[in-house]
Amino acid sequence: MKKLVLLIVAPLIFCWTIVSVNSECNLPTNLIKEIQSYEEIATNIINSLTTGKYKGGTYNELAKFVDTFGARVSGTENLENAIDYALALMKQYGLENVHGEEALVPHWVRNEERGEILEPRKANLPVLGLGSSVGTLANGIEAEVVVVKTFDQLKGLNTTIKGKIVVFNEDWITYGTSVAYRSHGASEAARFGAEAVLIRSVTPFSMSTLHTGWQDYEEGVVKIPTACISKEDAQLFQRYQDRGQKIVVRLHLNYTRFEDSKSRNSVGEIQGSTYPDKVVLVSGHIDSWDVGVGAMDDGGGAFISWYALAVLHGLGLRPRRTLRAVLWTAEEPGLVGWAAYNASHYNELDNFTFVMESDEGTFSPLGINYAAGVEGGCIIQEIVKLLAPINATQAVPSTNGVGSDISAWTSSLLPGASLLNENQRYFWFHHSAADTMDVLDPDNLDKSTAVWAVVSYIIADLTDDFPRNRDQPRVKVVN
Amino acid sequence: MKKLVLLIVAPLIFCWTIVSVNSECNLPTNLIKEIQSYEEIATNIINSLTTGKYKGGTYNELAKFVDTFGARVSGTENLENAIDYALALMKQYGLENVHGEEALVPHWVRNEERGEILEPRKANLPVLGLGSSVGTLANGIEAEVVVVKTFDQLKGLNTTIKGKIVVFNEDWITYGTSVAYRSHGASEAARFGAEAVLIRSVTPFSMSTLHTGWQDYEEGVVKIPTACISKEDAQLFQRYQDRGQKIVVRLHLNYTRFEDSKSRNSVGEIQGSTYPDKVVLVSGHIDSWDVGVGAMDDGGGAFISWYALAVLHGLGLRPRRTLRAVLWTAEEPGLVGWAAYNASHYNELDNFTFVMESDEGTFSPLGINYAAGVEGGCIIQEIVKLLAPINATQAVPSTNGVGSDISAWTSSLLPGASLLNENQRYFWFHHSAADTMDVLDPDNLDKSTAVWAVVSYIIADLTDDFPRNRDQPRVKVVN
Repeated sequence: MKKLVLLIVAPLIFCWTIVSVNSECNLPTNLIKEIQSYEEIATNIINSLTTGKYKGGTYNELAKFVDTFGARVSGTENLENAIDYALALMKQYGLENVHGEEALVPHWVRNEERGEILEPRKANLPVLGLGSSVGTLANGIEAEVVVVKTFDQLKGLNTTIKGKIVVFNEDWITYGTSVAYRSHGASEAARFGAEAVLIRSVTPFSMSTLHTGWQDYEEGVVKIPTACISKEDAQLFQRYQDRGQKIVVRLHLNYTRFEDSKSRNSVGEIQGSTYPDKVVLVSGHIDSWDVGVGAMDDGGGAFISWYALAVLHGLGLRPRRTLRAVLWTAEEPGLVGWAAYNASHYNELDNFTFVMESDEGTFSPLGINYAAGVEGGCIIQEIVKLLAPINATQAVPSTNGVGSDISAWTSSLLPGASLLNENQRYFWFHHSAADTMDVLDPDNLDKSTAVWAVVSYIIADLTDDFPRNRDQPRVKVVN
Repeated sequence: MKKLVLLIVAPLIFCWTIVSVNSECNLPTNLIKEIQSYEEIATNIINSLTTGKYKGGTYNELAKFVDTFGARVSGTENLENAIDYALALMKQYGLENVHGEEALVPHWVRNEERGEILEPRKANLPVLGLGSSVGTLANGIEAEVVVVKTFDQLKGLNTTIKGKIVVFNEDWITYGTSVAYRSHGASEAARFGAEAVLIRSVTPFSMSTLHTGWQDYEEGVVKIPTACISKEDAQLFQRYQDRGQKIVVRLHLNYTRFEDSKSRNSVGEIQGSTYPDKVVLVSGHIDSWDVGVGAMDDGGGAFISWYALAVLHGLGLRPRRTLRAVLWTAEEPGLVGWAAYNASHYNELDNFTFVMESDEGTFSPLGINYAAGVEGGCIIQEIVKLLAPINATQAVPSTNGVGSDISAWTSSLLPGASLLNENQRYFWFHHSAADTMDVLDPDNLDKSTAVWAVVSYIIADLTDDFPRNRDQPRVKVVN
């Protein structure tokens, strides 16, 4: 489980490759007709959210939530209070079987952090520690800086690294590629005797913004402090070094890693009328980083998930199978809430018909990104046609899994989907102080909830189970 | 002078209205031919900057400058050191008559500032004081917050303002419109007994970014502390208030306003071969705010100005009239360097043929924004045709003045121009920690310098003086 968690660290998003949609679907005519028969229901759901009773509801509930709790960090009492609030909210909106499911989660907090450039020019150096980092000794670290752009450059410098602060000024390529410097930079540099590591914030766009995130120490390698700096300061260091100027930095980093503590995945359902044991799962994660308020990552995803069920309940819609909203805890420190859930529900996974997660933004929705095999893809293509009133009719297959928490499930075992949306700016705000309600738009949240509700409802209500065949060897998920 | 300075506070930019370019220019054929005869020279200038010896030079010199000095605040020793460096640089590149001209400038510094939301949820509140603000008493201010979007709303609330902290959550309309809340918010709220004022940062786009700027207390109104907060926090306060939630904030703001001190406008020239007393002036300002490093505002404008002369000198080009680069000091506290220069050169203004300033960004250049009357506009339209190799052929008239320091000159008295460029994102970075070298692009700086060099050289070299007639009553600039 640990290995799995380490391998798939945090959002494995935007990794999908667009492959041509199979235009030669051969779904049975009666299945096509059955899907088409949901048109009126789909339109009712959409209308209730875009012009009716539920218009603005997702945004307003989410705003009240984040304005009340702010950041919701794994291991904190504040997160547990936020979870209590979310559970109460799901009950208030009529969801069934509302409860928390325990998970033991990491608890790492930043106490104080300061950076200063001493040479070639005295200046403040804003730093933001990476999750799980150790701190410096009480009197800090003062050392010369060496800037590298890649791990290969680091290896090339070899013995000259000893005693230095390594700055990784990695280029933004994709999140999946560039995040390696955040995840593994500290241990990679520690092998060569570095004193500390600063990484350029992993983002395609910066306004002197700091973007934190979890990092992993490799076993057997000395643990050195690691933090991010802005893209701008990384580039400044690059220019100093390229001009042959000596760079000296002082760091005071103070963090505490507490014992793991109890948290909960939050669950609410609409129980199935015919097959209550069969589950279509919609999800997002409720925890966030400690900077910003996690409105985008992943307040939006968590709230469209339970609110989709609230809307369906309010419209009197009960599908044949159970619809289950899960608000994962402790996604940020490595999908920890999901791992606990997977362990305790592993023997029931055969009953999981379809799993969905939104953790890549709830900007203007375009449709569905799916990992569901050829036949499953054809079904989704039919379903999203019913989203024409909100122009969210794209069905894009993923060659890997989808979602973050559910990525291990959907990369091999279970068919699933994530929300395809206009999230080109997602990483501008990701894990930074800029992740606030201002990133979100009420109308886009309405439409995102509509996509979520329509797709999950239809899949949960179809006569036949969604096809499990992923056209790939079925790989066992380690539990 | 004071009155003038107060009236035209800081960049009066983006106030121009696009009016249709006069397509019926009736310039004398010999003048058109004379302008066309500069094609080879213009192309040489452009090539030297885009592919030749000077390629990358503007960016590299500017980067060295801002990396060495960082922010350059009016009244500080650091600004004076930066001015010494700039003067030495102009000499090194062969400019003539390089010297500083004294100006008495404001000196306001932030010592410490902290904001905290106490109710309805304890949270840190990042604040950034506005230039010239007084501080709070040593133990700070703790008061209830009232949010208004407009001055009219403030007046409507009247007596309920007493003892409160007023938050101006003004919408972004244009900089010229919205900046009124920054410039005058404190005095407007103080009339009603407010204890302090927080304004929403004046920007169309925020990443939880703080945007400072100068503010003006009205004479006879009690001076209360004033700072900006992020757009996100202003919107948060709006939501709290709209829900009927009580908001309490604590502020500790500590600033010092020192006596005005001596600074200098930095001057370098290529003296005219035929009319050395006649001047074409190119300019930008060398001072900056204390957040960020003023790379964009206005390092770019200052550096394309002197570097344009450096390139012309390097190419052996000496125009008939004198080309003068001026790097204004203390623009940010209200065009103070310009005012001193205007006062000491007021009797020579008849010799100022044409004045140029770039203080609206040096992004991809599009051409010239001018305030030059109908005939002058026709001449500029001919000149910018020579900028076709870099697609900077637009000539857009302004109905007001152009530039910031030179706005009083160009709104009535003198013909002038500013750099038209793709500056849609200018105010994203303006007066914030995000104003760094990363905003700028080496190629765009090369092209901006080329526009500056070509236009100023031709106007300084034409047989006849650039027409002074502004087709408006000539208003005397107060000195």
